[in-house]
Amino acid sequence: MPIPAHLSPAIPESDLPRIVIVGGGFGGLNLAKSLKHVKAQVVLLDKNNFHTFQPLLYQVATAGLEPDSIAGPLRKSFEGNPNYYFRMVKVTGVDPKKNEVITSIGNLTYDYLVLANGSVTNYFNKKDFRPKVLPLKRIVHALDVRSHILQNFEQAVMTKDEKELEKMMNIVVVGGGPTGVEVSGALAELKRYILPKDYPDLDFSKMKIHLIEGSERLLNGMSDFAGKEALSYIQKMGIDVQLNTFVEDYDGDTVTLNSGTIETATVVWSAGVRGNVVDGLDESSVTRSRILVDEFNKVKGTDNVFAVGDVAMMQTDKFPNGHPMVAPVAMQQGRHLAKNLKNLINGQSPQEFKYFDKGSMATIGKNKAVVDMPNGMKFKGFFAWIIWMFVHIMYLIGFRNKLITLNNWIWSYLTYDKGTRLIIRTFNRKFIRRPSVR
Amino acid sequence: MPIPAHLSPAIPESDLPRIVIVGGGFGGLNLAKSLKHVKAQVVLLDKNNFHTFQPLLYQVATAGLEPDSIAGPLRKSFEGNPNYYFRMVKVTGVDPKKNEVITSIGNLTYDYLVLANGSVTNYFNKKDFRPKVLPLKRIVHALDVRSHILQNFEQAVMTKDEKELEKMMNIVVVGGGPTGVEVSGALAELKRYILPKDYPDLDFSKMKIHLIEGSERLLNGMSDFAGKEALSYIQKMGIDVQLNTFVEDYDGDTVTLNSGTIETATVVWSAGVRGNVVDGLDESSVTRSRILVDEFNKVKGTDNVFAVGDVAMMQTDKFPNGHPMVAPVAMQQGRHLAKNLKNLINGQSPQEFKYFDKGSMATIGKNKAVVDMPNGMKFKGFFAWIIWMFVHIMYLIGFRNKLITLNNWIWSYLTYDKGTRLIIRTFNRKFIRRPSVR
Repeated sequence: MPIPAHLSPAIPESDLPRIVIVGGGFGGLNLAKSLKHVKAQVVLLDKNNFHTFQPLLYQVATAGLEPDSIAGPLRKSFEGNPNYYFRMVKVTGVDPKKNEVITSIGNLTYDYLVLANGSVTNYFNKKDFRPKVLPLKRIVHALDVRSHILQNFEQAVMTKDEKELEKMMNIVVVGGGPTGVEVSGALAELKRYILPKDYPDLDFSKMKIHLIEGSERLLNGMSDFAGKEALSYIQKMGIDVQLNTFVEDYDGDTVTLNSGTIETATVVWSAGVRGNVVDGLDESSVTRSRILVDEFNKVKGTDNVFAVGDVAMMQTDKFPNGHPMVAPVAMQQGRHLAKNLKNLINGQSPQEFKYFDKGSMATIGKNKAVVDMPNGMKFKGFFAWIIWMFVHIMYLIGFRNKLITLNNWIWSYLTYDKGTRLIIRTFNRKFIRRPSVR
Repeated sequence: MPIPAHLSPAIPESDLPRIVIVGGGFGGLNLAKSLKHVKAQVVLLDKNNFHTFQPLLYQVATAGLEPDSIAGPLRKSFEGNPNYYFRMVKVTGVDPKKNEVITSIGNLTYDYLVLANGSVTNYFNKKDFRPKVLPLKRIVHALDVRSHILQNFEQAVMTKDEKELEKMMNIVVVGGGPTGVEVSGALAELKRYILPKDYPDLDFSKMKIHLIEGSERLLNGMSDFAGKEALSYIQKMGIDVQLNTFVEDYDGDTVTLNSGTIETATVVWSAGVRGNVVDGLDESSVTRSRILVDEFNKVKGTDNVFAVGDVAMMQTDKFPNGHPMVAPVAMQQGRHLAKNLKNLINGQSPQEFKYFDKGSMATIGKNKAVVDMPNGMKFKGFFAWIIWMFVHIMYLIGFRNKLITLNNWIWSYLTYDKGTRLIIRTFNRKFIRRPSVR
């Protein structure tokens, strides 16, 4: 696409060193916020004008929350900071030799560059069915999952064909990590409490939710206890779990597994993520879709390029394959790098990054959650679920989002209702299964 | 588009008379709800699965409310009623001789048919620029206005060309009815309180909001008092109002008026609506895009076809050109027709519809509103604004929507903040002004 002649990143010249941050996710946003008192010009680039609280995307996908309550405008975080610049652009590459980032509207020079591009959905090179499955990594994805599932139920009530009806009602979730577990649990609750009231003409014993996981357990990043308890919750909720199972193909009607087939119009793809590495870095600094960084988050082989969060791979004794690709790592690396950049600018020595593991958790449904504490304590059930809610509300950006989300949760707890069951297709999917009835 | 063979409206046969309602707006929804205790099979058809509270669309367009809080799932209104059927289909016509409605997935017979299709944006046959202006009649429109305006500001900070910059910042609102007045007022508040904080690098004295009205006054449906006071509010807020002015053309860059030109990338089209009349009615029963009905809302020349709300024109002594195309008329006609259908089914005589005018109101901004009471009393200011809020909250469907909207309003009143400034393009517009930077 040609660059319109009148556009450019247009950052004013300044005597201050310029720190360019690519990506306004957990890493980039926390870094930018923590640079508030550093004498530098801070430029944040993102293709969206908002930060997405990804851990709650699954609730948008399952009609529990509206998108606006888990996203916050990035500019709002920088109000009143005269040395901050936000630019809504797509970064296509970097040129470390020229100290330039390459964007969709031209190049921008930097003194320090921080790559915080996060991760994208990993399709494991399954190019054929990629446009037919529903990823769950961005706001538009979540809205599309919601609309797709509800639209299928609207079609199901109008179909005369028993086989078509089952396809419309069946849902396959691929990947038994936190997203897969949380989305299947939320779907099982929709099936139990909401959908039968909305669609009294349908027989919901026909609706099957399948959770497909390639390894031998759920929640691989968590303890054995958490994995087993999650499996037990999920199975009690009536979800068919298939472990050690891989998706080989999907043609829009039939999922082909190594163990058999499932007829469905809906495949939610939460099988994993990979680092979102931009072009232009030296090949030696990229491994398994992540950027190799040293203990100061500096990209190997560079002097002034850094990476934080999902896209960064810092190999340590404790984490020989890099830290887990989760929000707390990105947040901590973002905040820590702010201190190191300040040190660098002031001519002081940088400090090693040390990950402070606060534990991990996943929720499967109302009163159903699992928590691994950093001290090795593990628990489940109502108390775990309360902690999960508390932590997620705490970390949601902005008081307004906290308030609205809390409202929604209390409402849905008291009424077993989910408010946001609107079908609003947000983008034209390349693959549309059949003529829409709209 | 061919009809998929496996789909049909699929309503079970029944001994009860079948009432088919086309459209789940204010008229159709209130009719359907009021038919609860009538012995009939009730079928509601709508191309969306939700009801839209259109009076607050302008707040979604100006980042004040999220779409989910002004829309409610239609199926939820019918939970627990075994004789109710909702079908998400597009109705393309009627065949009164065969007693059939024609939908995108096949025909459906009726004993009684109610056309409650409401209205659509009136472009006054300006086909050339129709794809270039932004209507404001549906949820997707409102989301698109919001995204379009914010996206232009994101581009404005990156442009080097002074003329382009002005185009990005200028906004033209066409039509000085309630929607036009409310949207211009909300834009002026965005300009004053929100945008300068979000975009400190832009000079907001360059942002001009123009309100273009063809007649000699604003708020034509209301009193002279209301029109004058609204004009005064609007002008004090810095909006350029041009009365007796028509839009002749818009090429995406320049609006051509009968009195001059304005350079702008954004034209919000709130110039009016026209009845959404389906095909298949006798020509003699349609006039000026509305369906002629008698005092019982029965379509002229038919026995069992009715029309309510915006699409119906009931010519009375007081309203020789039909009732105003506003929500209260539709709601009252819907509820009244429910009684008449009950009478008809029970072999009793129908009763004449009488419109109970509850007054009308419009809000221009915080503490700024105008109210015409039915007794002739008129007032403005803080008290009018409180009444406006109270009435709108009252009529919002569902407790949850009331709660969330109230929250948003209190939040925005206390903080002068608007929460939902996310750019999420919801549908591919045929006309895209320039290459998106995303």
